[in-house]
Amino acid sequence: MSNAAPQPTPCRGYAAADARSPLAPHAFTRRALRDNDVRIDIRYCGVCHSDLHQARNDWRNTVYPCIPGHEIVGQVAAVGSSVRRYKAGDWVAAGCLVDSCRECGECTAGREVFCQKGATLTYNGKDRQTGDITFGGYSSHIVVRDEFVLRMPDGLDPARAAPLLCAGITTYSPLRHWQVGPGSKVAVAGLGGLGHMGVKLAHAMGAEVTVLTRSAAKSDEAKALGAHHVLLSSDPDSMKRATGTFDFVLDTIPVVHELDPYVRLVRTHGALVLVGVIDTIPAFSSRLLIGGRKTLSGSAIGGIPETQELLDFCAAKGIVAECEMTTMPRINEAFERMEKGDVRYRFVIDMQTL
Amino acid sequence: MSNAAPQPTPCRGYAAADARSPLAPHAFTRRALRDNDVRIDIRYCGVCHSDLHQARNDWRNTVYPCIPGHEIVGQVAAVGSSVRRYKAGDWVAAGCLVDSCRECGECTAGREVFCQKGATLTYNGKDRQTGDITFGGYSSHIVVRDEFVLRMPDGLDPARAAPLLCAGITTYSPLRHWQVGPGSKVAVAGLGGLGHMGVKLAHAMGAEVTVLTRSAAKSDEAKALGAHHVLLSSDPDSMKRATGTFDFVLDTIPVVHELDPYVRLVRTHGALVLVGVIDTIPAFSSRLLIGGRKTLSGSAIGGIPETQELLDFCAAKGIVAECEMTTMPRINEAFERMEKGDVRYRFVIDMQTL
Repeated sequence: MSNAAPQPTPCRGYAAADARSPLAPHAFTRRALRDNDVRIDIRYCGVCHSDLHQARNDWRNTVYPCIPGHEIVGQVAAVGSSVRRYKAGDWVAAGCLVDSCRECGECTAGREVFCQKGATLTYNGKDRQTGDITFGGYSSHIVVRDEFVLRMPDGLDPARAAPLLCAGITTYSPLRHWQVGPGSKVAVAGLGGLGHMGVKLAHAMGAEVTVLTRSAAKSDEAKALGAHHVLLSSDPDSMKRATGTFDFVLDTIPVVHELDPYVRLVRTHGALVLVGVIDTIPAFSSRLLIGGRKTLSGSAIGGIPETQELLDFCAAKGIVAECEMTTMPRINEAFERMEKGDVRYRFVIDMQTL
Repeated sequence: MSNAAPQPTPCRGYAAADARSPLAPHAFTRRALRDNDVRIDIRYCGVCHSDLHQARNDWRNTVYPCIPGHEIVGQVAAVGSSVRRYKAGDWVAAGCLVDSCRECGECTAGREVFCQKGATLTYNGKDRQTGDITFGGYSSHIVVRDEFVLRMPDGLDPARAAPLLCAGITTYSPLRHWQVGPGSKVAVAGLGGLGHMGVKLAHAMGAEVTVLTRSAAKSDEAKALGAHHVLLSSDPDSMKRATGTFDFVLDTIPVVHELDPYVRLVRTHGALVLVGVIDTIPAFSSRLLIGGRKTLSGSAIGGIPETQELLDFCAAKGIVAECEMTTMPRINEAFERMEKGDVRYRFVIDMQTL
């Protein structure tokens, strides 16, 4: 019977049926294992703000039913006939990507997120062979091609590692790309799921880290995460004194906001990098860029090799996300609280509760 | 008598008396030579759009009377007692800067334009010793400290070299900083004083150069300047086909404009650099930066060593600006025509006409 063709597997998840309905149980089918596929029993799944945006069709491209979830940690259940890297029982992870063209310059350079033909997203993406819409990690299991499966290093708490797959890599990649390290002065704007990872990672890279926050009440928690300083963005005098003092400002603020106050903080030749807000940026002064040859840029998650590098870095440095565990049936409550910023700093779903 | 203290020298120039008056003859005094000063008899002065902005107080910081002009080529008339690099009769040049703190990290790195204490501009600046307002190159002579005087290399037509001091260095510096060279695909948006220098310089650096223009009529002249291709920015289909194809877009457009169409042309990890418009940039989509880790930046002229490097590069490559010679009494007409884009591509004043 071992030669029998693999069969599709029934799967359970939580789906949005449309833009207005709460997430609800949903039964569907995962594809039969292809030769290079890995089937992962999902143990933990982080709750990303993107999950909420996508479920509610905020980006006007959602296909329903939509099963979110791209911070996935689990154990291998089965592998396709060509898979050698993984075996049943291995702890593995999957992030925002499950496939790409794997041929273009970006893919061959390990930057699959920038695949010139468009990477296949873990949910609300389109399978490159069948065209079927992909379903994410708010589900009992997932099927991912070998090359997009990450290995969980020993010593990482699998529950608290889940947010590394999106919040972690989204902050790790720009910190690395702009060569943050010992001697760097880094400011992190926003202290949510992304921001708190940015603080931990920049600290671990040896940078001097400042958290920019509107609330003095966050000072203690920022320092507990590894920030050396806290700068009150609501205090014009403090902001003025900090003009031109940061090599790198990581802007994780998840809502539309003015950039000028943050660009002013960047030193000559430094960079402000947006990772939090995918939306229209208000008008701003070109004088701020021209007067200091400053860089304004953005960054999107990271490639697969870099994501593995992040997991290994976190294992070596003892870094995991600060999480509040929740259950699958309480996902709608978690969405509501996340929207209000009422979580320190990331919800992770214990998928046993599905 | 050789030990007599140097005396201030009477000087003639053309000044704006206020924001609305045309430029008119103006008599004033240049400072007595300090030990490290060079007095330059001005032979040619380029007409930069900034001259017009400053004369009209468009940036709301003009001190009147205002004598513009920062594309200065001339001959040494006299030197202070400590000056060894220059002697009377030498062909020299001065650009946008005549002094800086010379101590900060930027100055010691040869990036005086970004002086952390603020460089002293050639006109409408403030002398670091006396606090007097500086007067520019629309005048018979100028006094500049030694370190800010540039040497004119042999073989450069001094009249047509004048625009190198601002238009040239403003485009050379970002092309160098972003490492444009053989294999680079460069687009130059806008074909005026800055843009035409950008085309010539990028071509000379070995890049494949495309001019972005709204007018098909400019195609021939763009190619005559060295452009390999012309892309009609007014044609949505052409713009769409060019999505993501340029390593570097040099935006010299001198008026406020939407950035999104130009950011779309930049490849993943590439850069769009603003040098033309110092003003408020309209709202734009962060998605365009995030989705390709693209850089939006700006650049301001260049440092003194880099300006000398540019002059030497231009002499070696046989590059000068395309100029229309004009006279000092006709400066107001030149301003009017420049404002309408009616000049190919830079007015240069023959200062003998003063």
